[in-house]
Amino acid sequence: MKLEAVKIENPDNKYQVIVGQANFTIFTCDDIFKALLTAVPGIKCAVAMNEAAPKLTRVTGNDEKLKELAAKNALAIAASHVFVVMTENAFPINVLNTIKLHPAVCNIYVASANPIEIIVAETELGKAVVGTVDGTAVTRIESEEEKRERRETVAKLGYKLD
Amino acid sequence: MKLEAVKIENPDNKYQVIVGQANFTIFTCDDIFKALLTAVPGIKCAVAMNEAAPKLTRVTGNDEKLKELAAKNALAIAASHVFVVMTENAFPINVLNTIKLHPAVCNIYVASANPIEIIVAETELGKAVVGTVDGTAVTRIESEEEKRERRETVAKLGYKLD
Amino acid sequence: MKLEAVKIENPDNKYQVIVGQANFTIFTCDDIFKALLTAVPGIKCAVAMNEAAPKLTRVTGNDEKLKELAAKNALAIAASHVFVVMTENAFPINVLNTIKLHPAVCNIYVASANPIEIIVAETELGKAVVGTVDGTAVTRIESEEEKRERRETVAKLGYKLD
Amino acid sequence: MKLEAVKIENPDNKYQVIVGQANFTIFTCDDIFKALLTAVPGIKCAVAMNEAAPKLTRVTGNDEKLKELAAKNALAIAASHVFVVMTENAFPINVLNTIKLHPAVCNIYVASANPIEIIVAETELGKAVVGTVDGTAVTRIESEEEKRERRETVAKLGYKLD
Repeated sequence: MKLEAVKIENPDNKYQVIVGQANFTIFTCDDIFKALLTAVPGIKCAVAMNEAAPKLTRVTGNDEKLKELAAKNALAIAASHVFVVMTENAFPINVLNTIKLHPAVCNIYVASANPIEIIVAETELGKAVVGTVDGTAVTRIESEEEKRERRETVAKLGYKLD
Repeated sequence: MKLEAVKIENPDNKYQVIVGQANFTIFTCDDIFKALLTAVPGIKCAVAMNEAAPKLTRVTGNDEKLKELAAKNALAIAASHVFVVMTENAFPINVLNTIKLHPAVCNIYVASANPIEIIVAETELGKAVVGTVDGTAVTRIESEEEKRERRETVAKLGYKLD
Repeated sequence: MKLEAVKIENPDNKYQVIVGQANFTIFTCDDIFKALLTAVPGIKCAVAMNEAAPKLTRVTGNDEKLKELAAKNALAIAASHVFVVMTENAFPINVLNTIKLHPAVCNIYVASANPIEIIVAETELGKAVVGTVDGTAVTRIESEEEKRERRETVAKLGYKLD
Repeated sequence: MKLEAVKIENPDNKYQVIVGQANFTIFTCDDIFKALLTAVPGIKCAVAMNEAAPKLTRVTGNDEKLKELAAKNALAIAASHVFVVMTENAFPINVLNTIKLHPAVCNIYVASANPIEIIVAETELGKAVVGTVDGTAVTRIESEEEKRERRETVAKLGYKLD
């Protein structure tokens, strides 16, 4: 079986990218977008989703650059019923539960601003996402000092108690 | 590692098929079925689920044809703790959240009435679902006219405001 | 404080009635309706919801009789941000989780086809739902025989294993 | 039984107020706050929650004004295990599901920027929230013209498709 690594296009890794599997594309592409509008005030985002018949990438959003990128990435993956969400001013922790609980969503493959590769298998019928590379692989376990430092960083980001 | 594409049997693609991963098969096979009974009035459905020890496909449902197909498809996939739900008069958007929120369910690989292939890897220990082909791959991005048409189709299906 | 029991109008108790508290009426009235469309294939339903400013009952749905009844009942309750859902061919177990997980919903006061009274308190500011009478009160504990019978009834309704 | 209407203090109704019931105050007060930090980027919010023994209002947050108001309002309600969330730059639709899904939360009584009164009953043991007045009561059903206007308003607020 042919396996291919599709690079997600994300200039300067400045956008958040979420890739998942759902169904009922003509409805869901718009409906995930509308659900995202409730998740974060003033969210800028786009949703692209692939449909097997006709063989089209559908796209909706409220930012032209994000729409272009989301559609391009969904088309590059090509596997049917896969969706790509791209956001500018919202993080995955702000929107993942909204997406997970959408009634047409099966699962989420990856959510990250790292460089991403989607591993796609190809059969005679079509294509399938079989895995995702979400940034570089790790090489060792953190030290106690590094654990302390990451917690300080989290606190600096505002995730702390008064 | 050996990879195989298992075709889901679904005559005329007239049934909806949902494939996922869960655990506690002897309980879960029946309990997902009972949960589905609450999701849609008069739902016709079957749930088949694989168990590693003993090496059996378990099946339950309220329609003999759906039970036969769900069990056959689960057995063809063979991977342990994988379940196959088949429904006749309910769509994935009617039941996916019920399944996702079931306490024994890990995730859902695919939900569709498209032709489906389940990509299965085989190791010395057993088998694993590594991806799903959910219909043919896409080839281009929709035009504005095609976007307008799909929204009209969604409205014709009843998803519109008065 | 003045307390009043508002009778829910429901001819022959043939419709299912759900009363709850939410917010952002101009958005939510329509959006709960659209969420219900995904819950049950071919659902007939209406959503009415009260808004404090302007002092209006908003209503949407896909059945004129249900819209009229839902709006009339919401207006009779009058408390702001209260919504009334009425369905013809769907039961609360088919739609309650969809409503509970809607991002604008606080809670659900009652869901039933029993005769219902909503207990409403009135202050100088406005009105508040303080409780619901959902059918007649009970008088004793079931016997073992009655427990067996109710389980048979549940099975006759289709909630049984093959 | 003594019933009292406790006015929520909210200068110019400029903050969003959410009142609910939970448990395990010493843990939950901080943990709802931390959950809110994941819901909206840069959220400004405070959580106050009442504890029966010792008889204290606990409070946490990242904005001194919101902490003062949330604590004052929780203390005025006084009922044990009641929590008050106040936010400045986030709406209830951005955070309600995060709160509803928190493992210590029972339910949410009200979520609004309207003038709010919490109806509190007092027994020998303590106090109970029995209802909420969430703005003024409604007086009539919207016209078709008013329905059209509210949908235009929702679209102007950004809840629309491209």
